[in-house]
Amino acid sequence: MLKDQHILRIPGPSPIPPSVGRAMNQTMIGHRGKETKELLERILPKLKSVFGTKQDVIPVAGSGTAGLEMAVSNAAHPGDDVLVIVSGAFGDRFAKICDAFQLKLHRIDVEWGDTIDPQAVQEYLQAHPEIKVVFATYCETSTGILNPIEQLAKTIHESSDALFVVDGVSCLGGVEANMDEWGVDIYVTGSQKAFMLPAGLMFIAASERAWKVIEDNPQPRFYLDMRVYRKNLEKVSTPYTPALSLLFGLDQVLNLLEEEGLENVYHRHIVMRDMTRAAFKALDIPLLAADEDASPTVTAVRPADFDSETLRSAVKEHFNLTMAGGQQHLKGSIFRVGHMGYCSPADVLQTISLIEIGLVKIGKDIQLGKGVQAAQEIYLQQEEK
Amino acid sequence: MLKDQHILRIPGPSPIPPSVGRAMNQTMIGHRGKETKELLERILPKLKSVFGTKQDVIPVAGSGTAGLEMAVSNAAHPGDDVLVIVSGAFGDRFAKICDAFQLKLHRIDVEWGDTIDPQAVQEYLQAHPEIKVVFATYCETSTGILNPIEQLAKTIHESSDALFVVDGVSCLGGVEANMDEWGVDIYVTGSQKAFMLPAGLMFIAASERAWKVIEDNPQPRFYLDMRVYRKNLEKVSTPYTPALSLLFGLDQVLNLLEEEGLENVYHRHIVMRDMTRAAFKALDIPLLAADEDASPTVTAVRPADFDSETLRSAVKEHFNLTMAGGQQHLKGSIFRVGHMGYCSPADVLQTISLIEIGLVKIGKDIQLGKGVQAAQEIYLQQEEK
Repeated sequence: MLKDQHILRIPGPSPIPPSVGRAMNQTMIGHRGKETKELLERILPKLKSVFGTKQDVIPVAGSGTAGLEMAVSNAAHPGDDVLVIVSGAFGDRFAKICDAFQLKLHRIDVEWGDTIDPQAVQEYLQAHPEIKVVFATYCETSTGILNPIEQLAKTIHESSDALFVVDGVSCLGGVEANMDEWGVDIYVTGSQKAFMLPAGLMFIAASERAWKVIEDNPQPRFYLDMRVYRKNLEKVSTPYTPALSLLFGLDQVLNLLEEEGLENVYHRHIVMRDMTRAAFKALDIPLLAADEDASPTVTAVRPADFDSETLRSAVKEHFNLTMAGGQQHLKGSIFRVGHMGYCSPADVLQTISLIEIGLVKIGKDIQLGKGVQAAQEIYLQQEEK
Repeated sequence: MLKDQHILRIPGPSPIPPSVGRAMNQTMIGHRGKETKELLERILPKLKSVFGTKQDVIPVAGSGTAGLEMAVSNAAHPGDDVLVIVSGAFGDRFAKICDAFQLKLHRIDVEWGDTIDPQAVQEYLQAHPEIKVVFATYCETSTGILNPIEQLAKTIHESSDALFVVDGVSCLGGVEANMDEWGVDIYVTGSQKAFMLPAGLMFIAASERAWKVIEDNPQPRFYLDMRVYRKNLEKVSTPYTPALSLLFGLDQVLNLLEEEGLENVYHRHIVMRDMTRAAFKALDIPLLAADEDASPTVTAVRPADFDSETLRSAVKEHFNLTMAGGQQHLKGSIFRVGHMGYCSPADVLQTISLIEIGLVKIGKDIQLGKGVQAAQEIYLQQEEK
């Protein structure tokens, strides 16, 4: 096998664009100097358009989970009643963090692979007016679904004063965020998914009403205290040492997104989702999520007549193609194909052609090229705007 | 379209493996110091196995054409009668260089797309015993054919004392060279093809009998005088400043070739050739060369019912996929797909799936996925050894 080729198709970390790799290799600079200020001046306004907000978007050195904790520890006051919508492993993580902070945890569990019905949330909130914060996951990485954030925001604000906090880790940058327009109170995301960067950076933004709650929140916190970051942003600075090489890379990522155009980036992800799903359907291989629930960034496949892990090993062995397995109770019964960030329809076609070979390798009787053909047809139907 | 993705499928320059790019970015070193000596000590023996020779393989800063001139100006004495086998643009270049050196030029022209018949060379040499050097091209990049070097060497040595000089620029590193076993007197190649490096470095090796001719050659030459390089190699050094970053990269390229195993590297190229040809056949698109003449590193396609340039523009516009056009009188009537060096069967499948979309885009009526399927079947038939 060709050495030094790695085809990375997991739902993050995702491949790094060459120009971003080069950008990250810049000579180190002082984090209190003029260059860092200029770097932040370039980055900050562009981050706002990815989030769809007029609010500050705060970059923090830490992984996505640090972002989730930052949301919990800043949005929820000690002892608050909070509702977590759990549609997979990452909704469950929100719940674990709320537990760790000894909040009064309410949870609505959704069947893994399904999305939440806003109606159920409305009824729950009406029955529990004491709930102060609602937590939801936008793209549930473990199942490949996209929860209906716009409708959820609407429903929640109609039925209560609770803040609406959204984990956008595995999709922001690849799908519409519309924070202000939809009324999301806090958005969190990470750098290693649709943001095309290595892990190590997370981003968080809060609405005006969220900031009021955050400002007088007595919850003990230091590194993850959003107030300190906001204060420093006023003078275009960071309270603690920023992850500079990741910011160098982010600067270039934002250039690439601007060059392509956010509308086109979002459309490209939808096309990649539809190409991937059409391919598996053409091969008669069941998908975990329904069409209307599917995420543009990751597709979860639930094979009926072959073993996911055997297929994953086969494509890894033959092509160094890495796909993800299932998490928790879905371990072994599904596999997940990432198509986010630095990934194109051309990459999706390659991935499908390799999966087809892998399927033959593990003895499944398929017609080679059939999945590729279905994906090619979708591409031809849905041109880039 | 996804920015910063470039799918480079021309017959060189070819893509650079990431680890080679990183290797080339090492801190610069002194070219007369211990590090450079150690670098050359690692590189030189491994180059010999790629060439299949016990002789020194000399790396020189210059492009492939500098290598061709080095072969001519060192192998041919002033006024010598030389025979150039011209099967395409690069055989023609050999002839031009011989002209520039005012040698007595004989040429056998072969129809572009065909290979030379050793019989014709034998007859010519028997009729012209005055010929001192025979020049041939191993892979003729302009037509995608591979001349029968082993049989040519045999025939030439049986019928005359002429030296046999071979241009291996667009295939060495991707196909068997067997310099000593076959009896090639001088091999030349470049860095930007199957060697997976940027252009700027060329390699040349000579047999014992060739060295005798070179040593007492009065032809005026300085930078390209092979004697000076040979002398310096005795103390593992170079006469002039070496292209160090390319040597850093070469060091890693040779590691990658060793890791994969030269036999597997050659087999991979044969599989990529067969996959590519099977795909175009399945799509009823004519190939320029016959199966028995086809090179494992590049495939030339001669469409009967669509315009090559229109297809090349379509795949460039939609996927930033670059294919090569035709040269000289084949300009406009063929296109060429490179599959050499840092290129895998997975890349070939991607390229074919994109060409299929391009064909539909330019209005050709094909069955999508048909070429991919044919290539997948070849892959499954011919496993890596």
